[in-house]
Amino acid sequence: MDAADPLARLRGRFSLPPGLIYLDGNSLGARSNTATEAARRVVEEEWGRGLIRSWTQADWIDAPVRVGDALGRLIGAAEGQVLVTDSTTANIFKLLVAALNHQAPRGVVLLEGENFPADNYIAQGVEFALARGLELRVVPGAQLVDALDESVAVLLASHVNYRTGLSLDMARINRRAAEVGALTLWDLAHSAGLLDVRLDASGADMAVGCGYKYLNGGPGAPAFLYVAERHQAALRSPLFGWMGHARPFEFGADYEPAPGIRRFACGTPGVVGLAVLEDALEQLADVSPVDLQAKASKLTRTFIELVHSRCPDAGMTLLGPVEAAAGERGGHVTFTHPEGYGIVQALIAREVIPDFRSPEGVRFGFAPAYLRFVDLWEAVEHLRSVLAGREYADARYRERARVT
Amino acid sequence: MDAADPLARLRGRFSLPPGLIYLDGNSLGARSNTATEAARRVVEEEWGRGLIRSWTQADWIDAPVRVGDALGRLIGAAEGQVLVTDSTTANIFKLLVAALNHQAPRGVVLLEGENFPADNYIAQGVEFALARGLELRVVPGAQLVDALDESVAVLLASHVNYRTGLSLDMARINRRAAEVGALTLWDLAHSAGLLDVRLDASGADMAVGCGYKYLNGGPGAPAFLYVAERHQAALRSPLFGWMGHARPFEFGADYEPAPGIRRFACGTPGVVGLAVLEDALEQLADVSPVDLQAKASKLTRTFIELVHSRCPDAGMTLLGPVEAAAGERGGHVTFTHPEGYGIVQALIAREVIPDFRSPEGVRFGFAPAYLRFVDLWEAVEHLRSVLAGREYADARYRERARVT
Repeated sequence: MDAADPLARLRGRFSLPPGLIYLDGNSLGARSNTATEAARRVVEEEWGRGLIRSWTQADWIDAPVRVGDALGRLIGAAEGQVLVTDSTTANIFKLLVAALNHQAPRGVVLLEGENFPADNYIAQGVEFALARGLELRVVPGAQLVDALDESVAVLLASHVNYRTGLSLDMARINRRAAEVGALTLWDLAHSAGLLDVRLDASGADMAVGCGYKYLNGGPGAPAFLYVAERHQAALRSPLFGWMGHARPFEFGADYEPAPGIRRFACGTPGVVGLAVLEDALEQLADVSPVDLQAKASKLTRTFIELVHSRCPDAGMTLLGPVEAAAGERGGHVTFTHPEGYGIVQALIAREVIPDFRSPEGVRFGFAPAYLRFVDLWEAVEHLRSVLAGREYADARYRERARVT
Repeated sequence: MDAADPLARLRGRFSLPPGLIYLDGNSLGARSNTATEAARRVVEEEWGRGLIRSWTQADWIDAPVRVGDALGRLIGAAEGQVLVTDSTTANIFKLLVAALNHQAPRGVVLLEGENFPADNYIAQGVEFALARGLELRVVPGAQLVDALDESVAVLLASHVNYRTGLSLDMARINRRAAEVGALTLWDLAHSAGLLDVRLDASGADMAVGCGYKYLNGGPGAPAFLYVAERHQAALRSPLFGWMGHARPFEFGADYEPAPGIRRFACGTPGVVGLAVLEDALEQLADVSPVDLQAKASKLTRTFIELVHSRCPDAGMTLLGPVEAAAGERGGHVTFTHPEGYGIVQALIAREVIPDFRSPEGVRFGFAPAYLRFVDLWEAVEHLRSVLAGREYADARYRERARVT
């Protein structure tokens, strides 16, 4: 399967520790071979030699838009609609408030119950901040389309479920939202750089996502936001940041939002983080999201089959259905097991890195850019040994660390 | 004067391009000798080798608090009150909304008219977002004490004026605010790492600041916030970010703020930027803010005297008074001149870097950690030549660049 993989060439662009089988690119992507040099260049040359002049000479000032456009190609967004800025948290807050302001008096925020919990926390924060009788309406993903009605100001949904890995039908939900005049806000954390996300073509209104998962932008990489061009003039971020001002260097007394996507910028952008993310996106510049999605589908399918065939009757229960077409599942799968925490720790001790999701989920992620099919085979053989040898019961794994 | 400078040893810790006289450390501080290595270590080793494990093994997870505590020493804040997170913009927004919520029904935000304009933009953004009849009351700095009354929920003021360099009397304003039950929020952008800021001792309630000026954290370094311990339990950031949750890795359905300063965290922190800032703070770990303030005072005083004595009758007009005691002025001064823009450009062509502040301000900044008195002498000699030779009138400087 590796010999037939059209993306096999990409692995050579990334540096993984020898012997490690890394199945957590869905939490933190791998480092490219040139990431260190990208960081060195910006720190030593652009900052160290250019100092303040690099805002123009090294074009730091345009980096949020330039890197946003590079990212846009991977998520089906034409130029001028994606901005790299802030954190996913802050971006969701900005866009939810913008949408609620624009949609007033509508006050319903429709949330998927299976959203990444932090997304729903932010909606709770908006409710706390605005204190004007919003309603956070939480429904299961399968009921989102039916729940979209004329009371809904904005829908916030994770494109790919952070546990099951299953994706929502973005086009169908966008279509229904448009019919009732609701805006959609998609969290692409687990699909950007992985699935063939078609924001423009599917009629998405807004989206956010982080730079450190399948985009490989490094720990805490800057996040991104997308606002469809047709909405940009009407939506205003509540964080009136100077980088979103129409004329940031005139220092006028009043805020005036920039035209276009820049109005959603906030404070001074983190230039080093942007440079590392830009380098990471260059690794995928010649790659089609269609190919990434096809490989992700093969990887998850292969892994499920291997677990079922090599570890039968071991208590590993897949969350969600076995069958999923390309695009219906993201890049990760979760199996539950009563000893999930110990299993994760025992695998890590064997240099196989999944992650643990409370209370008993063992989550395996498969980044198509650098994972090989042979890695899956070896990972499942390790899993088989851990289960057969009850390695998860080791006393070392009894006390749970704060982060796994 | 350099021979007698007790901080002269610090210059050797920073890398400045040979021959360059850098008078813009108030906009973007200089790079330490070890900044590149700090970036390399986090990118290549912690990320590249540790991958997801570094959240615990390299203690990324505690970096916002750890670096915050290191920073706190420079601004008179005991441990557990400073968090490195987000941008100054986002932090002001978070704390203004927190204060307004806590202080309801009070709805007045008292702003200094001479605040850095972006600070006041954020207050306008809060007004936009909350849409509940706030009043933004803007008064000159000299009237802040008199304007503090029982209607004021929160005061937002720049500690050091971004143009004149003059500071407000923080202790006096805090005292009056406490008498009327208003909260204070100080922007330390131009004083952290420079003045002997005594947040705890002066009774400050809240503060924010950026990492890239006198703290030398690099372009777009993460910002910080301070919340006095006595207020932490009562104040809630509206950005309910998962890193501010009491148990972020349990993924519960509802947001519950962490105890202590962590509750003001937001999304996943930018680890590379934090590492570079942490390195920069280590350069100042053995330095007293009292000594930094004393040198800053000598530098600004010396520069003003040199301009007046070496460039008399050249049209350079100092903003603000000539005399200012240590602590009454920050690290920069602004002279106005009708040809200010051209003067800045001509100086830059001579490898002397001030910055331009519209409409005709020439701003000179003096970072005490790496500026020498001889640099001031040479800078003023260049200025004398620019003025005497009317170099500012060069046609190259007619068209204004977007950033100077």
